[in-house]
Parts: sequence; C-alpha cells; structure tokens
Amino acid sequence: MTAGIYAGRQKLNTLLITKSFGGQMTRKAVNIENWPGLAEISGLDLIQKFTNHLKKQPVEIFEDSAVKIAKKNKIFSLLTKKRKKFQSAAVIVASGADPRPLEVLGEKKFIGKGVSYCVVCDGPLYSGKEVAVAGGGNAGFEAAISLSSYVKKAYILEFGPQIRADKISQEQVSQKKNITVIVQAALKKIQGNDFVESVVYQDRKSKALKTLKVQGLFVEIGSQPATSFVKGLVDFNEKDEIVVNPKTSQTKTPGLFAAGDVTDVKYKQIVIACGEGAKAALSAYEYLQKL
Amino acid sequence: MTAGIYAGRQKLNTLLITKSFGGQMTRKAVNIENWPGLAEISGLDLIQKFTNHLKKQPVEIFEDSAVKIAKKNKIFSLLTKKRKKFQSAAVIVASGADPRPLEVLGEKKFIGKGVSYCVVCDGPLYSGKEVAVAGGGNAGFEAAISLSSYVKKAYILEFGPQIRADKISQEQVSQKKNITVIVQAALKKIQGNDFVESVVYQDRKSKALKTLKVQGLFVEIGSQPATSFVKGLVDFNEKDEIVVNPKTSQTKTPGLFAAGDVTDVKYKQIVIACGEGAKAALSAYEYLQKL
Repeated sequence: MTAGIYAGRQKLNTLLITKSFGGQMTRKAVNIENWPGLAEISGLDLIQKFTNHLKKQPVEIFEDSAVKIAKKNKIFSLLTKKRKKFQSAAVIVASGADPRPLEVLGEKKFIGKGVSYCVVCDGPLYSGKEVAVAGGGNAGFEAAISLSSYVKKAYILEFGPQIRADKISQEQVSQKKNITVIVQAALKKIQGNDFVESVVYQDRKSKALKTLKVQGLFVEIGSQPATSFVKGLVDFNEKDEIVVNPKTSQTKTPGLFAAGDVTDVKYKQIVIACGEGAKAALSAYEYLQKL
Repeated sequence: MTAGIYAGRQKLNTLLITKSFGGQMTRKAVNIENWPGLAEISGLDLIQKFTNHLKKQPVEIFEDSAVKIAKKNKIFSLLTKKRKKFQSAAVIVASGADPRPLEVLGEKKFIGKGVSYCVVCDGPLYSGKEVAVAGGGNAGFEAAISLSSYVKKAYILEFGPQIRADKISQEQVSQKKNITVIVQAALKKIQGNDFVESVVYQDRKSKALKTLKVQGLFVEIGSQPATSFVKGLVDFNEKDEIVVNPKTSQTKTPGLFAAGDVTDVKYKQIVIACGEGAKAALSAYEYLQKL
C-alpha cells in the first residue's frame, strides 16, 4: 500500500493487483502497538487507514493475484489468476509472507488469542505469564530469549532430536533460568476456552502425551513468502525470500523491485515494510525516468 | 522517535537525548501527504502523535544534544551540550539532517509558502504552476525532471558556470520542453506577499539583476547532517552522511547504530526514516543480547 501511495504521488501510471488488503495484519486479533504515532490500533483499523489513503491516489486497483511475471525487451508481462494479462515497464512485488503454520488442532481458533507468529509484536502482552515457543531453530531461540526478560516461564519445543539454533543462542538460553528446552516434542493440540490455557505435545521417544500449562504459544517454524510467480527473475535466499539491494529495493532484474516481508529484509515489521515500499516506488520512478 | 518506541518495547534501558522533537517536520508549513494512513496531516500534528506514542514507552527523555561520543572497553560515553555525561552499551544516532539553506533574502520567510527543500514531499502542490530549482547538481536536475511532468515551467538556477549534473540527467532535461537551465545565476532575493511570487537573481557574467515569476522555489544544494559528535567512530560518505549497513543500521563501530536522514539512506522520507529507526533499535537489541 505504501508503494502504491508513493507511485501514485509520483504520477506513475500505476496498477495495484491484490486479492485483498492488509495481509498478515488482517489476522491480528490483538492490537498493533508498534505503528509509530498510534499507541494502539486494531489491524483492521490500520488497514482501513492505509486503504483510504491509497484510494485517494491516482492508482488503479484490480482484485486478483499474480500468477506469472516475465520480461521481454524491457517490458514486463504479468498473468493473473483470473487469466488477465497486463504489461508494464516496471514491477514492484510486495506480496508478503505468511508465517508457516503448525497445522495442529486449535491453532486457527486461537490465533490472536494466545497463538502468535510474532514475538516482537505480541510478546509484551505476556508479561508475567507462561508461554511456549514452537521451533528450536534460531528464530525460536531468539524468541524465547526475548520473551525471557518479561515472561514468568518459556518452553522451547523442538520436533527433532537436535537443537538447530546457533551455539551462541544455545548458550544464552542455557543461562536463562526461566527457559526450558524440550526436544522430540510433537505438538498435538492447543487448548483453552476463549484464550489458550495449555498445549499438548507427544514425547516422540516415549510416545507419552504431555500437557504444558501456558497462556501463549509463539510459532517460530519459518515463513512462506509468496514468490513463485517471479521465479527466474530474482534470486532467492535460503528462506525463499527475494534478494534485494537494501538501498534501492532492486532485484537482480532491472525494473523489478520488491519490498516488505516477501524480501530478505531482516526484520518483518509493518513500519519497516512501509519504508521499503516507499524505497521501491521511488526507485521504480528513477528507473522509469532513466529508461 | 521510532527507534525509541521500539527500544522501549524491547524493554531496553533507554535514554533518548534530543533538543526537541520532529526535526525537519517542524518546519513544514504545508501538510504532509505521504505518511501512510493519513492522507493529510500537519507536521506538528504528526510529531504530536509520535511524541504521545513515545511517551507511553519506558524511555527516559533528556532535553539536550550530544556533543561527543567515545567508546572504550565496549562502553560508550556520551557528553552533552549541558556538560552531562552518560554511559551506555549501545548507541543509536538519529540526529537527522537539515537541507543546506541558500541564505538569501526572503528564504526563511517563505519556507513552506513557496520555498521547499523536498520535491517528493511538496512538488505535487505546484501542478500547473511555474517553479525554480536552485542547484545544478544531480539533485537539482532530478528535482526539475520530476517537477516537469506536472508543473507548467521549471527553471534550474546554477551558481557556477558549469552544470554539475550527470550526463544522463542533462540529456533528460534537454528533452523536456518546460525546463530551462540558467548558469551563472546568483540568487539574491525571494519575493511575494503571503506566498512566493518571484525570485531575483544576478547574472554573474553581465552583473544584471533578473526576475523570474515563479510560485515555488526548490532548494537542492545539499544537506548538512548533524554528525560531528561521532567523528572517528563512523565512516562518512561524500555528503558527510554516516555510512551504515542498510540491513542492520550498524555503523563500522560495533554497538553504534544510525538511522534516518543522518545516514547514507538513499531517500530522505519520513516513513523510510521510521523503518530504519525500527531496524536500528532491533539491531541494537540483538547486539546487546549477544554482548
């Protein structure tokens, strides 16, 4: 949306293709507290503000999603799911990423009610409470370390027999008295009434089912950026994120820019994604001026 | 302010030192139209929103400015103008930059009333009008090219006998029928009643005074980042901006981060600076965790 606002303000002939607005923000049942200037706002209200702003710009909006982008003779052609074809001289990919879900019982029901995919966003809500983190990679360990400074207790649940986090994270976790690491833990169920009250996992060695009383579950098992439609035009990192020049949002294909959670931007945050979206639009503008 | 909000939310023991809040935003008499989510807001109102948000965080605010920062044994010591001394394990520099002023008669009077230092921000207000751009470097040429798509007429005024802009920008300008380049032009005066109505320059060759009827004057003669207090700890680019890793906002000194217009970030925009501020705070947090 920020890329659209900026492209519109630069008087670029802009088409914005999206199924819907807001992406991950639509699924946040807890309020957003880190959008600068608003101490607290619901995801849906913030999306509405962005959408209103966008719709005041000379930007055409088409409800659809991109299926394939190709480039020939400096012209991009884009095919959508509804079989529409568009051509343009520049493209900005800002299709976001979804956190990879656990796909266990109760997960969907408790999203925003104890189940979270973002410690930076939601962690502070769990001050003094007990929480679990699903995922024993770097993300899970970092999440637990971050939580440990204000939660009462954090459990890290790793499916495999081995911890995958870096040594330095492991050392830090071992120094925190309120973090317990559990390996061979296959999460089975998330339970509660209105909010999460416990999680059930199976000890993959003994096959025993065990229950942890926690008020929060942070899922840190990676994300799934929506990038298949630009294969061949961009480089991907090991997380399937689009590699961009962080100064310009340029991908390896001239005229193709990417911004936000779909890219290898280090932190996945609303205000950071907005900043990158503005960069991408201003870079696209410069590119078009020089073309 | 965004770095402060993020540092506070991460429960870092945070001191924010500033003379005042808002920087360049305080000097914008025209409304801000490119802060995502707000189609139009005054600079002062947006600052107030940011300030309110910041003050809800556990961040101590000290009204002063940094004079000197040094690092010894992983500890930074900071001296302020009021001769206070502070120590910290990490520092974020977000002291901004001021556009370099022309220092001619009428300039201060008409800031936000025809005199602007930001084409991206204010350019669209001059649709169909006549404007001048002070500065024949890349910034001035790019400003004029950008303006040319909607203003009636743009003059580029260059003080020296030679244009300093890149050839590509010069070629583009030569193709625009509504841009006129004037060299050897020493701006003397900006005139008008409530808003700019004309500018007076001296032809440095003939010594004759000439008047251009314009409603806008864009000043593009560089900026002055406030960086002297970190000399020795950071690298500077040719514009005296602090060189940072654009992914992490890290400077060359571990534990010293920088964000926003004080850095070599390519585009100086509010939402981009906020994104970089969030990155700097999250990077500082990571750095402190590993320390």
